[in-house]
Amino acid sequence: MGCPVEDAQLATEVLLSADLRGIDSHGVARLSGYVRLWQANRINPHPTITIVHETPSTAVVDGDAGLGLVVGPKAMEIAMEKARVAGTGWVAVKNSNHFGIAGYHAMKCLEKDMIGMAMTNASPLVAPTFSSERLLGTNPIAVAIPAGKEPAFVADFATTTAANGKLEILQRKGLDAPLGWIQTKDGEPTADAHALKQGGALVPLGSDRDHGSHKGYCLGAWVDIFSAVLSGANYGPWVPPFVSFLAPPSDPVGSGIGHFFGAMRVDAFRPAQEFKDHMDNWINRFRSAKPVTGAERVLIPGDPEREMAAERIKTGIPVNDKVVEDLTQLSKSFGLALRTS
Amino acid sequence: MGCPVEDAQLATEVLLSADLRGIDSHGVARLSGYVRLWQANRINPHPTITIVHETPSTAVVDGDAGLGLVVGPKAMEIAMEKARVAGTGWVAVKNSNHFGIAGYHAMKCLEKDMIGMAMTNASPLVAPTFSSERLLGTNPIAVAIPAGKEPAFVADFATTTAANGKLEILQRKGLDAPLGWIQTKDGEPTADAHALKQGGALVPLGSDRDHGSHKGYCLGAWVDIFSAVLSGANYGPWVPPFVSFLAPPSDPVGSGIGHFFGAMRVDAFRPAQEFKDHMDNWINRFRSAKPVTGAERVLIPGDPEREMAAERIKTGIPVNDKVVEDLTQLSKSFGLALRTS
Repeated sequence: MGCPVEDAQLATEVLLSADLRGIDSHGVARLSGYVRLWQANRINPHPTITIVHETPSTAVVDGDAGLGLVVGPKAMEIAMEKARVAGTGWVAVKNSNHFGIAGYHAMKCLEKDMIGMAMTNASPLVAPTFSSERLLGTNPIAVAIPAGKEPAFVADFATTTAANGKLEILQRKGLDAPLGWIQTKDGEPTADAHALKQGGALVPLGSDRDHGSHKGYCLGAWVDIFSAVLSGANYGPWVPPFVSFLAPPSDPVGSGIGHFFGAMRVDAFRPAQEFKDHMDNWINRFRSAKPVTGAERVLIPGDPEREMAAERIKTGIPVNDKVVEDLTQLSKSFGLALRTS
Repeated sequence: MGCPVEDAQLATEVLLSADLRGIDSHGVARLSGYVRLWQANRINPHPTITIVHETPSTAVVDGDAGLGLVVGPKAMEIAMEKARVAGTGWVAVKNSNHFGIAGYHAMKCLEKDMIGMAMTNASPLVAPTFSSERLLGTNPIAVAIPAGKEPAFVADFATTTAANGKLEILQRKGLDAPLGWIQTKDGEPTADAHALKQGGALVPLGSDRDHGSHKGYCLGAWVDIFSAVLSGANYGPWVPPFVSFLAPPSDPVGSGIGHFFGAMRVDAFRPAQEFKDHMDNWINRFRSAKPVTGAERVLIPGDPEREMAAERIKTGIPVNDKVVEDLTQLSKSFGLALRTS
């Protein structure tokens, strides 16, 4: 595509971190999607990423329409450098594209004894509470918090009841979705995993008003505003779609999609070792909680993905046939050798 | 109680802001609770509130066991002063008590064209996903974002499916709760609004694993760690109970309860007027979304509370008999005149 080698390697690392952690929807399965966006002239393979505004603890970064997989890590580096000097660093990004899993970016802070936060907005697939229109993306939030002897706390979740990737799995298998994940185009609850294709929508975390969907709507809106209204990216229904066959809105309100990154030095609050000792205590107390009947144990955010990564680093990452086919096609069109075993 | 007059006035303002906004559970109804905590020597009426650690954009504040209603606003002032100089300010508070509604604190930033954030941990009433033990409070998050001609965006919500105040209303009326709000002591879903008294628990936003309760658990845990592990307050099951008849744990892991405040100058990211114009556009687009069948309109976070406040500022705040009785008792014991009409 014309990416500098270091950028290609960085993007690969971000995609593979998703596969390794078991979030297959955000890994190499997406590679062909990024390539099609590049073919549609919607991704700049050699962006000049710049700071357009800054204060001691903040910056706005223009991603120059680069891969979010490259723009994201560079923006997080800026946040961490701000945090080194000012205690915390907060970077809003405009003119970017999808950045892979939010957790990758947040976790970059862990090696520096910082708390990391990452958010991004995304193509509108989600209807706010009481809305039949799709106005928000699945807008994920990640928070990574270092611990001492215990593995870090890593929360990384879409602000919807279910991530779109889970719906895609049901669609492929021809299965129904649990009620409370999606609504029809008129806003009725439905189990039809294909309802989005008929104008339906994903619903915010909480499922319905009685169960707190207005709170999930608040979360998704918060992510949208921090990522895009603070940075100057597109927000709400103006966010350009990830798929190349849908054109971006003709009346943009900003540039590309937006992200928001935060880095907080732990020792900007208390001595790092003291903090980490208490995190270990927090983690051990929660992990040893009495489980409900039928559950094996109480998990700490990040446990399932870390355990999956430990497994896959040994046994490899299973890749489904459709993705292998995609990658084979890509390797042919770029004249690259693909080793499939 | 011996509070300095300014502190008493400030605490009154915070409590009344809850009543005005329709969050009656957090208003003057709680006054007798605070007084009982003071009688139990758990609230210091004349605290010396100090910064114990700081960087250009962060501080840790020791509340000296003061009323959270007083400690909170002072900590937020420190966050705003940091933001004035460094772009953003982040203050973790230990050794405090309940601070009223989170929204009050976040909204203090609006008048300075800042985004405000406020969180607090609270007595353990919530079971993490898969846990039959109560390890978290209802741990609310508030985010207040200034707009231009439109009223500000104000999200303020417990990270549980339903706030404890809503459950108390059902208990008083002898009504069942919707399934998905609470679990029994063994972790089974129940509609019994009194289940908490039998060892049951509130559940995180999302209700159950299939509907994303692990995400609500992440949110509640995030609030707990930012409020207490960063500051040196008690966290998880060690958070002292609000009610005076339950003793705090005998093996504290920190001091009092914890809060976390954030203030971000909007113009640390882009010119304030530009930001506010886009917020107006965001708000107008969401407010004009097509509602689902049966719903009147799509709301912006903060709409219901603002409309309630506009109504109550005209017609007054209805106070239920039990609260009037409480206040009458209080006025007698302190030798104060109570005007009831």
